[in-house]
Amino acid sequence: MTEPLFLRALRREKTERPPVWFMRQAGRCLPEYRALREKHSFLEVCKTPELACEVTLQPIRRFGFDASIVFSDILVIPEALGQTLTFGKGMGPQLEPAVRDAEGLKALADFDPLDKLGYVMDACKAIVAELPADTPLIGFCGAPFTVACYMVEGKGSKHFIEVKRLMYAQPEVFQQLLDTLVEHSITYLKGQVDAGCRAVQIFDTWAGELSSDDLERFAVDPARRIIAGLRAAGVTVPAIYFARGCADSLDIVKQAGADCYGLDWRARITKAWDALGHDVAVQGNLDPAILHAPPDVIKQKTQAILDEVAGRPGHVFNLGHGIHPFTPVESVQAVLDTIRA
Amino acid sequence: MTEPLFLRALRREKTERPPVWFMRQAGRCLPEYRALREKHSFLEVCKTPELACEVTLQPIRRFGFDASIVFSDILVIPEALGQTLTFGKGMGPQLEPAVRDAEGLKALADFDPLDKLGYVMDACKAIVAELPADTPLIGFCGAPFTVACYMVEGKGSKHFIEVKRLMYAQPEVFQQLLDTLVEHSITYLKGQVDAGCRAVQIFDTWAGELSSDDLERFAVDPARRIIAGLRAAGVTVPAIYFARGCADSLDIVKQAGADCYGLDWRARITKAWDALGHDVAVQGNLDPAILHAPPDVIKQKTQAILDEVAGRPGHVFNLGHGIHPFTPVESVQAVLDTIRA
Repeated sequence: MTEPLFLRALRREKTERPPVWFMRQAGRCLPEYRALREKHSFLEVCKTPELACEVTLQPIRRFGFDASIVFSDILVIPEALGQTLTFGKGMGPQLEPAVRDAEGLKALADFDPLDKLGYVMDACKAIVAELPADTPLIGFCGAPFTVACYMVEGKGSKHFIEVKRLMYAQPEVFQQLLDTLVEHSITYLKGQVDAGCRAVQIFDTWAGELSSDDLERFAVDPARRIIAGLRAAGVTVPAIYFARGCADSLDIVKQAGADCYGLDWRARITKAWDALGHDVAVQGNLDPAILHAPPDVIKQKTQAILDEVAGRPGHVFNLGHGIHPFTPVESVQAVLDTIRA
Repeated sequence: MTEPLFLRALRREKTERPPVWFMRQAGRCLPEYRALREKHSFLEVCKTPELACEVTLQPIRRFGFDASIVFSDILVIPEALGQTLTFGKGMGPQLEPAVRDAEGLKALADFDPLDKLGYVMDACKAIVAELPADTPLIGFCGAPFTVACYMVEGKGSKHFIEVKRLMYAQPEVFQQLLDTLVEHSITYLKGQVDAGCRAVQIFDTWAGELSSDDLERFAVDPARRIIAGLRAAGVTVPAIYFARGCADSLDIVKQAGADCYGLDWRARITKAWDALGHDVAVQGNLDPAILHAPPDVIKQKTQAILDEVAGRPGHVFNLGHGIHPFTPVESVQAVLDTIRA
């Protein structure tokens, strides 16, 4: 049997067309997701394997994406470490109490991801049992720097002053926080792979907030240690590292040692691939805002990416960032039609 | 008499040290500014030349920066065009009604910047009369794309969906909005120069939100037309273009034809300068968040930039973005001490 398109592309095999999936494809734009969410909170869906399974499968049923990603959140690790995770209406996530010093770090629970986050592994198993055989499931976690941003700021941030203050004023405390997250992320991702995931992605949403001389130490190196840790633990599935806002520093980002790198919508895909080197795959990078444009613009922008890549093996088509809520369903279809044409 | 350090650096003359000023240096971190603001609203300060003059001079008195920038806001043009500008407590600026279509565009007033924004020119004259002779005053405006973002979104934005929707769905309306802003910005900047400003800066805070294939058309080209328009009108002072978040696309940014380019804190200064070419000056790029770090870290990070530039003529030291409110005054001093050492 042929391997799934997505996995072949991640191995940079020549494929008939690029595989396509969208970050945050589960939920966000689907009416069937919103209907389910009227009855269940976001965290309830994450923590109930049959609900997580259902919403993970919704976009696959509707669009037939070439890969599926387990419905969860990058902040389940901080929650399992003892921070209270809430999602206020119209606000981003909040974590309390924020970790601001050695004491805050010490107060974090000593936890076993396989135990506390067992609901994610259960969801993975349920999803894999239902997915078409040619649609691999992707497991994921937040990159340590990005997760640490939320843990230290206590919420999303515009200027990331608190996390940078801790990083510069108490580097050993910050490093210890990163180390903790590296360790748990390895166990957690391995757990997802053992539960059936055939690729993993590490989301480093805030890596681009770091100046380039801090990028390696605080963002890329922790991600590298996760990937190395997985390899050392015998996990061989492809690893994707998505460091947002780092198009100018891909030579640094590449030190993560991933098999594939996510590119945000501002990166120029062939320039970025040249910077990364052609011994890795790339994933991206349509601006999710373009999905609010008329279909002919969407098709043209999608085609422009396909033209630029020009069929080089190792391209996974994706958005350059998570899909926005209330994106028209027809827009998603317009992208898929263009890629499949 | 020798020309001021700042202007010599902008002309890439060899200088004894780089000149230094901070974006948003007026206000934000100064207790004397906060004291004045307890009695006067932000817009009141902008619109009252003696108050604008006072807060513009405060950081010069305290720190002796090598350049001064008139205290104003990039949104005074939309306000003069008829949108209501408000600054809610703890929120960014808001503009009502938002411009979302041809009708909204048509509703904008036909205005003469020299008349409606005369208070800025009056402030410039008052400031220049008080500034030390070796401290040039910088005039500024928002770049058309960035100002249009606020005008269309009606406020700051995370995903810029409305502005991109207009841009893609009604490109001729969006282009007309940009054209309007280009035209008024030329008159406005020329007015500031006539009132004594010896350099101008165009702030393109949101340019980095555009995918690279839209960057030239929607952000860089309007900025280029402002600079070309100034030149055509006989204005010869140096022009600085600060397109934030574009470190990977400086070859495109450079088409603005500025004398100097601002670099945000994520750009790698020598790599960026190589990309821009050495026939222009560069300005930047210390992460403003570093000003919340201990003094020894601030000194080390400042020195790292100086070392990287290695005395190449044409470097203006600045932050990579506006200074944060409540930045410790000692932190600003630590940067200045390092540069002046």
